[in-house]
Amino acid sequence: MRLRDELTAQGKAAREAAQILASLSAEIKNKVLAAMADELESRKDLIIAANRQDLTAGEQAGLSTALLDRLELNDRRISAMAQGLRELAALPDPVGEIVEMQRRPNGLMIGKMRVPLGVVGMIYEARPNVTIDAAGLCFKSGNAVILRGGSEAINSNKILVQAAVGVLERFGLPAAAIQLVSSTDREAVSILLGMHEYLDVLIPRGGAGLIQRVINEARVPVIQTGIGNCHIYVDQSADLDMALRIVDNAKTSRPGVCNAVETLLVHREQAAVFLPRLFALFEGRVELRGCPKARSILPQIKAADESDWHAEYLDYILAVKVVDSFEEAIKHINTYGTMHSEAIVTNDYSNSQRFLREVDAAAVYINASTRFTDGNQFGMGAEIGISTQKLHARGPMGLKELTTIKYVIYGQGQVRE
Amino acid sequence: MRLRDELTAQGKAAREAAQILASLSAEIKNKVLAAMADELESRKDLIIAANRQDLTAGEQAGLSTALLDRLELNDRRISAMAQGLRELAALPDPVGEIVEMQRRPNGLMIGKMRVPLGVVGMIYEARPNVTIDAAGLCFKSGNAVILRGGSEAINSNKILVQAAVGVLERFGLPAAAIQLVSSTDREAVSILLGMHEYLDVLIPRGGAGLIQRVINEARVPVIQTGIGNCHIYVDQSADLDMALRIVDNAKTSRPGVCNAVETLLVHREQAAVFLPRLFALFEGRVELRGCPKARSILPQIKAADESDWHAEYLDYILAVKVVDSFEEAIKHINTYGTMHSEAIVTNDYSNSQRFLREVDAAAVYINASTRFTDGNQFGMGAEIGISTQKLHARGPMGLKELTTIKYVIYGQGQVRE
Repeated sequence: MRLRDELTAQGKAAREAAQILASLSAEIKNKVLAAMADELESRKDLIIAANRQDLTAGEQAGLSTALLDRLELNDRRISAMAQGLRELAALPDPVGEIVEMQRRPNGLMIGKMRVPLGVVGMIYEARPNVTIDAAGLCFKSGNAVILRGGSEAINSNKILVQAAVGVLERFGLPAAAIQLVSSTDREAVSILLGMHEYLDVLIPRGGAGLIQRVINEARVPVIQTGIGNCHIYVDQSADLDMALRIVDNAKTSRPGVCNAVETLLVHREQAAVFLPRLFALFEGRVELRGCPKARSILPQIKAADESDWHAEYLDYILAVKVVDSFEEAIKHINTYGTMHSEAIVTNDYSNSQRFLREVDAAAVYINASTRFTDGNQFGMGAEIGISTQKLHARGPMGLKELTTIKYVIYGQGQVRE
Repeated sequence: MRLRDELTAQGKAAREAAQILASLSAEIKNKVLAAMADELESRKDLIIAANRQDLTAGEQAGLSTALLDRLELNDRRISAMAQGLRELAALPDPVGEIVEMQRRPNGLMIGKMRVPLGVVGMIYEARPNVTIDAAGLCFKSGNAVILRGGSEAINSNKILVQAAVGVLERFGLPAAAIQLVSSTDREAVSILLGMHEYLDVLIPRGGAGLIQRVINEARVPVIQTGIGNCHIYVDQSADLDMALRIVDNAKTSRPGVCNAVETLLVHREQAAVFLPRLFALFEGRVELRGCPKARSILPQIKAADESDWHAEYLDYILAVKVVDSFEEAIKHINTYGTMHSEAIVTNDYSNSQRFLREVDAAAVYINASTRFTDGNQFGMGAEIGISTQKLHARGPMGLKELTTIKYVIYGQGQVRE
């Protein structure tokens, strides 16, 4: 019960802070972001020391090398966080913009004013840089934020939030604008998931287990992010050199991220030529797992089973399926995909257009790597996550996606007949 | 279990139908809508006979006159439904539009294509006209719909859906595009609320009890609609004639709807003149319930208590509070309002702008009646509901709000560095 009271108090304080944040000018917000960036850099040593505690505890707890790497903060990474805040300061402020103002026949002027969502909850895992990214994005978009990072990063997160809050206070702004859930108890997540009075939206960012828990338990509106079982389909008319470049990039440039490709679909007319070239390119780097037809061309690779079509490997593994037709490719993608990023390599005009229309995903590509699904690459600056759901925001979520609208109506005494 | 199987089968069929609907041309959709309109008119007698069964059962069950009135279909109302479908046919098709197409420095062309949500679930109460409105809006926006109307209207809803589905079949379209839940069991609602595999969004439309149940139980993304505890604030500088006209319109033109005013706030400097004029205007028509200050001016009115500030009367009752300042008015609205429609009557420029910015609601008015919050009045044609939440859609939801976007990316072989 004490934990619930504590979180409720944080929720209430966030609500109040949100009212003040909503009316801050871009000028103030940008100064605060710049000051936060300076603060992080000047506290570098303290941050690294706190992070060192997390790393030591993590090593003792037997975290994997990959997880420890995500957890680690060093000089370069702290500078990158600070740089991220400075870039946020340079982005246009979405709040207050009025769009689609129209004059109705009765003289009413009706427009949509962009306003903050209010209070954003973030639940994420071991990467402490998310703490500063999320705090910065929410602050710039006029939202209060309640952060619940992974328990492995608790010391790092505490000192990062402390630094940010110190700056808020120096500017006379409410500390509750950026709050960290200090308990690492799993129960805290359950409580947050039920706090619909205080949270306007909850954004989970992490593995499939976290996302699934949030979907099952949440009473708060949720934006699902980040699960990416992405496909590339090499069509009958594909330029095979281009296809190889794109598959290579989408698989190996950063296999641990959600926009990396996980399954390759190849038209049967191309398979006999393309698959041996792919095998040669990936030999010793990427494990291929194939359907029976793929293995009839590459008998040396492992067999893929049903679970491979569902898998988000996040690793140097690629499932390979030979399809008889364009339609079979689309059907496979719409069956097994997670509606994240899907690409076709083709030189057929009609197939390219059909692919765009018929594939149901946040980002659908013709002749480009799925790796571009990213706020920065899409020109919106930083992102708080990549939505794989259809409501409110789809694809990379930047500042604008952290706002909503309200209708503003200017009258001169109009009444309705 | 049989009911769950039945609904799951409906969900699956809706998913499949949605794929076909998503790629229909506006031309076909508009022809189908026009044919549905004709079909309703030609089946008028059958529809009225089925509705008569519902009315008889409702009378026997002791439904209130107001409910029976909402339930009733007659010649005029059926024509209005048909007319609604014809108007939908005349509206632009939102599906397929590509907006914000940009050319990135690397040559990628990135835009947002408007696409249907997929499968929409509607849970509503006794008004059978919602069945046709919702079916038409979902069809035009390329969505399949599963309708769960109030049990009181089951015979009316069945024959209306039958008529619509007959037209779908005549055009060779899947009957599952428009489905009615045939069970009137309450359990059906619980099952729908958990069907996140098959429903992309659920829109409850009805009283506070229904909305609350949906918020508590839903595993499916929900758009809350329609609870309206709306306020009008008569500012110190208000034109009192205008204020009277606006309050009269907002309270009495249709008191049973969500955009009717429920609480009046009056600045203390205006109260002594305004309240007696209001009392005279409303005498015998609208019951006033006042705060102590209001009753010191109008001792003959009832006292308002805390529950009155929360009440959505939907009736000829108005709560009245005298406030000491503009700030107190804003605070009252943001405390008790349901974020639907809020209005100020003022001639003070600075207060008018602050009201727009500081009041947190779907629609915020200066010098106009709250009754305008309506899809038609806002120029978007028909509406499927009025969202009082912040995610995805806020305010009246028309065709565009029944769509989402996907990013479409045209490349020439780009890979990410």
